[in-house]
Amino acid sequence: MLGAIEAGGTKFVCAVGDESGNIVNRVQIPTTVPGETMPRVIEFFKQYQIDAIGIGSFGPIDVNRDSPTYGSITSTPKTAWRDYPFVQTVKDSFAIPIGFHTDVNAAALGEATLGAAKGLDSCLYITVGTGIGAGAVVQGMLLQGMTHPEMGHILVRRHPNDLYKGKCPYHYDCLEGLAAGPAVEERWGERGVNLVGREEVWEMEGYYLAQALMHYILILSPKKIILGGGVMNQKHVFTSIYKYLPELIHGYVSLPELSDYIVSPGLGDAAGITGALILAQQAKGHGTGTLSQ
Amino acid sequence: MLGAIEAGGTKFVCAVGDESGNIVNRVQIPTTVPGETMPRVIEFFKQYQIDAIGIGSFGPIDVNRDSPTYGSITSTPKTAWRDYPFVQTVKDSFAIPIGFHTDVNAAALGEATLGAAKGLDSCLYITVGTGIGAGAVVQGMLLQGMTHPEMGHILVRRHPNDLYKGKCPYHYDCLEGLAAGPAVEERWGERGVNLVGREEVWEMEGYYLAQALMHYILILSPKKIILGGGVMNQKHVFTSIYKYLPELIHGYVSLPELSDYIVSPGLGDAAGITGALILAQQAKGHGTGTLSQ
Repeated sequence: MLGAIEAGGTKFVCAVGDESGNIVNRVQIPTTVPGETMPRVIEFFKQYQIDAIGIGSFGPIDVNRDSPTYGSITSTPKTAWRDYPFVQTVKDSFAIPIGFHTDVNAAALGEATLGAAKGLDSCLYITVGTGIGAGAVVQGMLLQGMTHPEMGHILVRRHPNDLYKGKCPYHYDCLEGLAAGPAVEERWGERGVNLVGREEVWEMEGYYLAQALMHYILILSPKKIILGGGVMNQKHVFTSIYKYLPELIHGYVSLPELSDYIVSPGLGDAAGITGALILAQQAKGHGTGTLSQ
Repeated sequence: MLGAIEAGGTKFVCAVGDESGNIVNRVQIPTTVPGETMPRVIEFFKQYQIDAIGIGSFGPIDVNRDSPTYGSITSTPKTAWRDYPFVQTVKDSFAIPIGFHTDVNAAALGEATLGAAKGLDSCLYITVGTGIGAGAVVQGMLLQGMTHPEMGHILVRRHPNDLYKGKCPYHYDCLEGLAAGPAVEERWGERGVNLVGREEVWEMEGYYLAQALMHYILILSPKKIILGGGVMNQKHVFTSIYKYLPELIHGYVSLPELSDYIVSPGLGDAAGITGALILAQQAKGHGTGTLSQ
């Protein structure tokens, strides 16, 4: 049996299951402070005989195995979790292999293994919700270099009708600052769910996301792009992306049929927790992180 | 003995040597039309007993081994070379393994193996010259997905003092359209070599390149960034990048000391041809493309 944790900013999803994504049991635990949340996480897994645990965590996190702070959450604005030794805490209760990556890299792994990019050695998973983050599988491995990607904060050019200042505390009007859920809400004065019929809202959203996708395509050349997160439940955003992306690329790179190339998660909301199960399996097998093809 | 071809838009560099970058002989052959250039390339290698040939080619090229046009140059504006079956032509004369990648991916491989990123499993190599291109090594492998990267055409925000329209035939004012050598020359009315003392020229150049580096860092997180090509001989550009990049990133990602992180090629002008020798060695060893660490 494998354990999986999808650690998000508002809730932890914990599950036990297998590497094929079959889940035997799952619970949600609110993300409050480590001293409250983590004992409940540990207690959940203590009920089972598990061989490994995979963690997909909100970030930024330290994924460099050579680093003294490997396995920690680092400079998060959630101060209670800053510099929190996540992997070590789990290891203190369970002497088993632990896999650890970002939540979005876990989701990319889930989608590449069992979801919309199943059978491909390359995909990009983007979530557009409270923030914007992305993970990627490149030649069968989770993308990682000096650290994990932080793709949500790239710069975009402003839509000519957009006077909103932007919401990112670091960059104001980077992609996340202009296109994440809280920016949409502040710009238009309503929550996204109340803006469903407002075409200009989703047209602008697609305008920004298409620029981001152009950059991701030119830099990473993913074989499949998967867009998840609450904002992407507004299907008009896909329509706007399909319109703007070819205008931007302008024939420079030949793209597959867009409705087949840029898609919703095949695993729905379960991409992250499924990816965490696969991270557990890889940790158990002393895996290199390479997908079995 | 290994053969190496660095196929550029104006010249082909051909060399014979070993995988440690030792070059026994090298020649330059002008890039005219395939019927002229290629017989001279073949003739050069016929003088030697070679075990494999590595090719780093101008692009775009087809690097997908499952494609029927694998090994071809594809949609290049150099019409004589469009759809040219490069690998097949070489194979017709030499029944030996052939390695094939972009010129910039070859240079990245050279730098990661024997140059400024020696010992690292991750680096980004960018050339800023007649065009802007980049290659990358990610977790020991040359970056490749649906196809090779085309990082030179990402969008940047305009410098407030820049009224130049941009030179890219696809996107006008993308990075290459604003910051490659021909754009610098057209904007300022002089060749770069005649603009050495004009601080505003190189300040603006660094402004654009810093934006590009921000995107590459947020998306790929390379462990080392190497900037080559004719424009980068103007060392003021590095100074401008070191100034703008931290302003842009604004503390969101912690960067190493910039003068150590963003550097000139360790192999100088030989990065590409050295990388092509290593591509030959990998082809010979039926290599997976993974760097030996």
